[in-house]
Amino acid sequence: MTSAPDYGRAFGRWRAQAPAWGAYTQHAFVEGLRTGALPHANFLHYLRQDYIFLIHFSRAWALAAAKSETLAELRAASGTVHALAHVEMPLHVELCARAGIDAAELEATEEAPANLAYTRYVLEAGYSGDFLDLMAALAPCVLGYGEIGARLAGSGGAYAPWCDTYGGAEYQGLCRDVGTLIDSALLHRLGPDWVASPRMARLGARFATATRLEVGFWDMGLAGA
Amino acid sequence: MTSAPDYGRAFGRWRAQAPAWGAYTQHAFVEGLRTGALPHANFLHYLRQDYIFLIHFSRAWALAAAKSETLAELRAASGTVHALAHVEMPLHVELCARAGIDAAELEATEEAPANLAYTRYVLEAGYSGDFLDLMAALAPCVLGYGEIGARLAGSGGAYAPWCDTYGGAEYQGLCRDVGTLIDSALLHRLGPDWVASPRMARLGARFATATRLEVGFWDMGLAGA
Amino acid sequence: MTSAPDYGRAFGRWRAQAPAWGAYTQHAFVEGLRTGALPHANFLHYLRQDYIFLIHFSRAWALAAAKSETLAELRAASGTVHALAHVEMPLHVELCARAGIDAAELEATEEAPANLAYTRYVLEAGYSGDFLDLMAALAPCVLGYGEIGARLAGSGGAYAPWCDTYGGAEYQGLCRDVGTLIDSALLHRLGPDWVASPRMARLGARFATATRLEVGFWDMGLAGA
Amino acid sequence: MTSAPDYGRAFGRWRAQAPAWGAYTQHAFVEGLRTGALPHANFLHYLRQDYIFLIHFSRAWALAAAKSETLAELRAASGTVHALAHVEMPLHVELCARAGIDAAELEATEEAPANLAYTRYVLEAGYSGDFLDLMAALAPCVLGYGEIGARLAGSGGAYAPWCDTYGGAEYQGLCRDVGTLIDSALLHRLGPDWVASPRMARLGARFATATRLEVGFWDMGLAGA
Repeated sequence: MTSAPDYGRAFGRWRAQAPAWGAYTQHAFVEGLRTGALPHANFLHYLRQDYIFLIHFSRAWALAAAKSETLAELRAASGTVHALAHVEMPLHVELCARAGIDAAELEATEEAPANLAYTRYVLEAGYSGDFLDLMAALAPCVLGYGEIGARLAGSGGAYAPWCDTYGGAEYQGLCRDVGTLIDSALLHRLGPDWVASPRMARLGARFATATRLEVGFWDMGLAGA
Repeated sequence: MTSAPDYGRAFGRWRAQAPAWGAYTQHAFVEGLRTGALPHANFLHYLRQDYIFLIHFSRAWALAAAKSETLAELRAASGTVHALAHVEMPLHVELCARAGIDAAELEATEEAPANLAYTRYVLEAGYSGDFLDLMAALAPCVLGYGEIGARLAGSGGAYAPWCDTYGGAEYQGLCRDVGTLIDSALLHRLGPDWVASPRMARLGARFATATRLEVGFWDMGLAGA
Repeated sequence: MTSAPDYGRAFGRWRAQAPAWGAYTQHAFVEGLRTGALPHANFLHYLRQDYIFLIHFSRAWALAAAKSETLAELRAASGTVHALAHVEMPLHVELCARAGIDAAELEATEEAPANLAYTRYVLEAGYSGDFLDLMAALAPCVLGYGEIGARLAGSGGAYAPWCDTYGGAEYQGLCRDVGTLIDSALLHRLGPDWVASPRMARLGARFATATRLEVGFWDMGLAGA
Repeated sequence: MTSAPDYGRAFGRWRAQAPAWGAYTQHAFVEGLRTGALPHANFLHYLRQDYIFLIHFSRAWALAAAKSETLAELRAASGTVHALAHVEMPLHVELCARAGIDAAELEATEEAPANLAYTRYVLEAGYSGDFLDLMAALAPCVLGYGEIGARLAGSGGAYAPWCDTYGGAEYQGLCRDVGTLIDSALLHRLGPDWVASPRMARLGARFATATRLEVGFWDMGLAGA
């Protein structure tokens, strides 16, 4: 497994304990994005599902804002929702439009089981648990895309825009900010010795499960069309 | 598609609008239970996953109790949790033990993605929505097993005990009770003309999605070992 | 009772069915703001509690974003959280600072029972129910302040800035937007005849209970110092 | 302050850090129950509100079952809901009937603000947080009544049945069981050194806030009629 980008202490530990991390970040779908060999139909299928994903992902960050315990957490989480709803999602709609998928087709997309599995796992973790459970379940997505992007940036080919977006300075900065948010939330709730807290093992298990579901998301992208 | 057992008005309507209902209730796994041709290893795999399923299913019924709006709903839902936690789960542990799976192995089972997908979908429906959302998401499991049981009862073979449990008078009575609970909850919240409420279309979509995830559960049983 | 400002159809109906509406919007605390006779110590006490209130109010709007069912709802709710966390709360801190309450004192404020009662009622309504329950519980605050502001605007005196903020064009526009959001959410969930839905009676009861708790909030402002 | 009954380690610590514990457990309403001097009208007012309280209290325990992380927690919490819904609430209805309050009157009771404040605080703590938050918010009620009952048992007078119920062996055993449940849940989530976890301070603050709201409940009982 390649070395971890520096997105904070918790990420480094959780990543090291997630058996499926390599299967996720070096998935054949990801390799197809890197080399450009991924069939366009699969990419479009992925984009359509990703639109639905972004809706539930925004809801999950909104839930994080609702479960925040400090003003800093509230601002970070609500800033993320705002950016998703007002910037990322319109961008995604535009990206899909350029790829020939109009808004009506996007709205009519039936959510795939692998999509349901990951988004509902994240939301349920948040509702059943607290801010930390939500962060551990969200992290494989946010930070995994950062790690993938960092590796794929500059690889050129048909999917260069995708690779350069996630590998770019803006997204990498967001990953470092989310890593800091997570470490601060752990410190706030579990104290200075949070690394040794038994809670960390259970949060690591959440991260590992969410990582398995991310593998399923790529599998779905590769299978579908 | 075969005719629906009489588990109430909502069930009849939701069932008729769920495209995957036949794929779920007449799945190859189900046919394997009926004929006895299902390999034992697959049945054991299913039993292990079903144990984890029952835990989250109990949590979902507990959430229904928390979201109840009448004393009758509170009693019905809490009675179900109590029966699951104090009767069904010990029975399941015993059933597994007879099949050679001890408690430690059960506890150590890793939850399969198809299991995560369905259970978290149900719980998230309940947390994000209300009692009705929860019922629409739970119904394919509770009432679908009833319909399957009613069809498979008496088919004999290796899985006769399973078939006769779900086809038996006790489980069939429970299905009728749950059907009544659902119809009453709809009447209480949406009024006497609940059948025509736009809410019904959205609840029907929940039921249909949950049905698709039940298909995935059987697929998992058939694939795994 | 004076006539209702036009913040939409649902507001007009809920307001007419809330017995405590007059007691809330024409409370002695409100009259003290209008005439300027409210002792400054009571206003400061109110400001300190209102700071804590705003935190939970932001969390409630974040929960609304998490429970939204359309992109428009997601954007409206997340826009409100963003404005609260990044604009309103800093303004409130500044207002308190000018009144001689520094940030440390604000943070150290013990939440009064009347504050706990209203904020937790709103959040619990949202968690236990859906977007509509949350809107019905939030509306007395958002729209009641609008109605009070519209009446008090231009009354001059020591509390003129407060009166003119809530009576001003910006806040009045926000009230009309929230009214539209509520009416649209009702239409989306209950259909074109939502006014006649039994759900409306239950949402009206939520609105009426929340109104009673707003009376308690003013009582607390008047009693405390 | 009198010495604490032995309901576990967490209770002992939280109790010692709740400034309002004495005001709650030795409230004038409680003294009125002990001496028999409490006017009957106030007791009836309390009984009516307590009926509504029990509904939301049952919902809170159901939420605890939904948020449980072990089978033992699921069983303990669901067993409590079951007992509340099927035993305690019918008993309460009967007690009210003997006191001249029929079921229709009970159902028509308007929930007092102090009742709303405590019950919604508990439920919101549970929804926003985890099983531990819920336990810390519930404990002042469950265990405070135990401590009061232990002190009042055998005091005779008009309210002897009430005093002897909460002071009796059955309720005292339940308090010890809940104390054990809480200590086990802390151990499970925070590890063997849970007493030193920063989480304990925040849970202690929840307990202290809930205790203040219990004082408000007795105030309401004393004021109302």
